[in-house]
Amino acid sequence: MNLDAYIRDIPDFPKPGIMFKDITPLLGNAAALRASISSLSEPYACQSIDAIVGIESRGFIFGAAVAHELNKGFIPIRKPGKLPADVLSVSYALEYGEDTVEIHRDALTAGQSVVIMDDVLATGGTMAAACELVEKTGADVVGLAFLVELGFLEGRAKLGDHTIHSVLTY
Amino acid sequence: MNLDAYIRDIPDFPKPGIMFKDITPLLGNAAALRASISSLSEPYACQSIDAIVGIESRGFIFGAAVAHELNKGFIPIRKPGKLPADVLSVSYALEYGEDTVEIHRDALTAGQSVVIMDDVLATGGTMAAACELVEKTGADVVGLAFLVELGFLEGRAKLGDHTIHSVLTY
Repeated sequence: MNLDAYIRDIPDFPKPGIMFKDITPLLGNAAALRASISSLSEPYACQSIDAIVGIESRGFIFGAAVAHELNKGFIPIRKPGKLPADVLSVSYALEYGEDTVEIHRDALTAGQSVVIMDDVLATGGTMAAACELVEKTGADVVGLAFLVELGFLEGRAKLGDHTIHSVLTY
Repeated sequence: MNLDAYIRDIPDFPKPGIMFKDITPLLGNAAALRASISSLSEPYACQSIDAIVGIESRGFIFGAAVAHELNKGFIPIRKPGKLPADVLSVSYALEYGEDTVEIHRDALTAGQSVVIMDDVLATGGTMAAACELVEKTGADVVGLAFLVELGFLEGRAKLGDHTIHSVLTY
């Protein structure tokens, strides 16, 4: 299935000069969503994995569906102040300012193996922070998966030697 | 399966006096997540439905997994400024101030049937706005589904005569 046909280019979003890859047509099409979840899940079907981690908020869409497909639990990484129990935090630099991601301190235990999932790999800052966050729990990051990778932004350079699986690359 | 055992009470979150129902232990347990998705999906398995709508951001978790389970497309309702194409908006009152939800204008077409999903039914304000938003597209809301309903907050009173399915009620 040609999933690229369900990704829509939106010029000048979120600011002038940016061509935004809109994944909502793909989400809204049952066959395209199903093919995406299959493709995202496929590398992990025969791997020993304890949970799928998804990054708020579009990473929740793919992470939860893949967790369901692979019969695993789902662990959310959230924006600051959203998780109610004791959290671990990692802050990272943005173009202007910084951002923070959080995970429940008891969400994972040492030695567990997880895949972290997000919709788009752009500059890689958020995913690098997510990896650091999961590693703080003692769990092992055994894979990173994205629906879309914007190769020209070279986000892979920020993600060390982690194994990266992208369904679509631009 | 006793799903209630995977819901954790967190006192004084997000503010003093509130007992927060934390669903992350349920999400993190593969069997509990699977049972939740089955239970959320069950009433719609034999109904004619075109798509599942999920409300940002915890509604994305259940909405996407149920869409995958039922082999339907998934439509996100998001916070303001997040959707890149032309949107419809509905604002609604909060205890202090107001909030707004948005949907892509072309996400649904007249006569389509959808189920709207969120994690928790509390006062019902967000879901009432989501119903109004879906109806603005011309689509029909044929069901509302929640993992948790906080019955004592009487959110149902805001949701008219919509059919409501809650997996757990407190």
